[in-house]
Amino acid sequence: MDDAAPHDPTLHEVGELEALRRFLPLLPAGDATDVGPGDDAAVVRAGDGRFVVTTDTMLEGADFRLGWSTWHDLGWKAVATNLIDVAAMGARPTSLVVALAVAPSTRVSALEGFARGLADAVAAMAPGCGVVGGDLGTAPHATVAVTAFGDLEGRAPVLRSGARATDAVWLVGRVGAAAAGLRHLFAQAQDEAAVPVAAAVERLRAGARGAVLEAQLAPVTPIGAGTLLADLGATAMLDVSDGLALDAARVARASGVRIALERAGVEAAAADVLADGAAPDAALEAALHGGEDHALLVTLPDGVRPPAELAGHRVHRIGRVEPLAAGDAPGVTLDGGAVEPRGWDPYRAVEL
Amino acid sequence: MDDAAPHDPTLHEVGELEALRRFLPLLPAGDATDVGPGDDAAVVRAGDGRFVVTTDTMLEGADFRLGWSTWHDLGWKAVATNLIDVAAMGARPTSLVVALAVAPSTRVSALEGFARGLADAVAAMAPGCGVVGGDLGTAPHATVAVTAFGDLEGRAPVLRSGARATDAVWLVGRVGAAAAGLRHLFAQAQDEAAVPVAAAVERLRAGARGAVLEAQLAPVTPIGAGTLLADLGATAMLDVSDGLALDAARVARASGVRIALERAGVEAAAADVLADGAAPDAALEAALHGGEDHALLVTLPDGVRPPAELAGHRVHRIGRVEPLAAGDAPGVTLDGGAVEPRGWDPYRAVEL
Repeated sequence: MDDAAPHDPTLHEVGELEALRRFLPLLPAGDATDVGPGDDAAVVRAGDGRFVVTTDTMLEGADFRLGWSTWHDLGWKAVATNLIDVAAMGARPTSLVVALAVAPSTRVSALEGFARGLADAVAAMAPGCGVVGGDLGTAPHATVAVTAFGDLEGRAPVLRSGARATDAVWLVGRVGAAAAGLRHLFAQAQDEAAVPVAAAVERLRAGARGAVLEAQLAPVTPIGAGTLLADLGATAMLDVSDGLALDAARVARASGVRIALERAGVEAAAADVLADGAAPDAALEAALHGGEDHALLVTLPDGVRPPAELAGHRVHRIGRVEPLAAGDAPGVTLDGGAVEPRGWDPYRAVEL
Repeated sequence: MDDAAPHDPTLHEVGELEALRRFLPLLPAGDATDVGPGDDAAVVRAGDGRFVVTTDTMLEGADFRLGWSTWHDLGWKAVATNLIDVAAMGARPTSLVVALAVAPSTRVSALEGFARGLADAVAAMAPGCGVVGGDLGTAPHATVAVTAFGDLEGRAPVLRSGARATDAVWLVGRVGAAAAGLRHLFAQAQDEAAVPVAAAVERLRAGARGAVLEAQLAPVTPIGAGTLLADLGATAMLDVSDGLALDAARVARASGVRIALERAGVEAAAADVLADGAAPDAALEAALHGGEDHALLVTLPDGVRPPAELAGHRVHRIGRVEPLAAGDAPGVTLDGGAVEPRGWDPYRAVEL
């Protein structure tokens, strides 16, 4: 231990109460919070008499690696990837609860970094949103379970099922970048035994690969665009988390239509991957099938033209909605050719 | 494999879509659900313009063992232990979301059992409540993350901080039983290598130990009593999950009072432990320091006398609230003698 550095104790050394005493003050309180952390439950205002709710769990190993992600990244990503699901309904995020389970050997500074990541992400992407409750526990592999809430403020929720055959298809945000970042991590940030090398990650993030690395490790997602798109008349909307082809197919199926993507538009939304040095075909591949970018896929009535930028994110027209001919199944095309969605199945990705 | 039995496939064999196809129809829809599972997020009605929210994670190893609990038990317990936190605020549970992560080798029938446990518990303890969303994932150790919601229906939330020096202290439900059940499991339901023996659990549950075993594995908690107690004028209320002494100390601290417990009342609430054969001192010990019973500890104005039974659970007067003399710290006494709360600290229970 460095004599000059203050001792950074483990959770086992300080115990739960002291850990909470350091963790809770770092969290954003939230504008809609009536009762925050500390009682059996929290109380959150829901102005329009409904609330939007979504839940997601990130597990060490399956969803992140601690040698690649910092604790600040994990807090940030938990906010960025959960509140975008709230936004995709056309709601304004009001609050979230966070359950964190880690090994007792985890440093208190890690917990503080996680809390600061939550707070910084909320400040950047959803100011006014609060962390109203949570749960600390132990697990051999770190587990982050987030449930997020939003207020529709009188709007009808924007579902996946509302796309109409005359709509245009737009994308707010980008596609392919997070997958490109992950590829760099696998190629350049682990040793021969597949152990993450943190120093290599730092070098990658600071260098020319920075944009796609950040897209994977600490993405800025277009949370603020959700209500704006709903107010523009969005007929269907979803968060592109599993790949554009697969998520577009979900809209197609739910709405009973064909989503006709146009390569030029998709490539424009994949500009970061091209700028990262990918060949056009590889960039298109990442754009169609790479997940985790959390752009908003939205269908808007034909005459509606959104601004070129919404809530700080580029807006691209990437195609149109087409009717199904009799006997046709809902699906996705690119410049007229069928695109086969590639599923991500958590139970099949692992060989037994 | 038995030729007569149908094949019970694993999640790896059927994949996520088929698993969801079997899982989702078993879940209760809920009376307050506007948009249920299947979109980016759910939409739940919150009649009075606020909602109550609590979250908790159960982890295999730290919180349950699959050789002791069935999957039906886990679903049941997830409902019983989370909705009681909603009830302890004086709210009616409306909905919950459930994130479940399990090994890909898990059988589909396990997932179905878990869903039926959720549904049966809701039907028994909170009819009208719905499972509105969730998340399926993989983890080497099973992880159940539940977030539960409630409607205050115009009531002020009942906090821990409202107990007044003239109030009486009541308990709805029982104490000590879950700890007694756990003791039997450790003593009689594992082999020399500490591996759970499922057949021994079945024998224990069917026998004279049944009541305390059920209290540990599939508790019936007084969820329906929460709103009734709030309407009777409860000044403070909480769910007794970490032991009566510790949880009473939380009310004492938050309210700035002393909680003076009376042995006769506490023993009455521990009748199941006495009936299970424990000596009086051991029963008192379990009652004061055994956790996981999820009774409601409530303070009511002195003149208010609740019925002997609320929502099917016995009601016991277990003490009174006393003012603090100058210089006294908030705390808990039993028949006038100080009771030291024993903390359960997840980060210190594990030796490193």
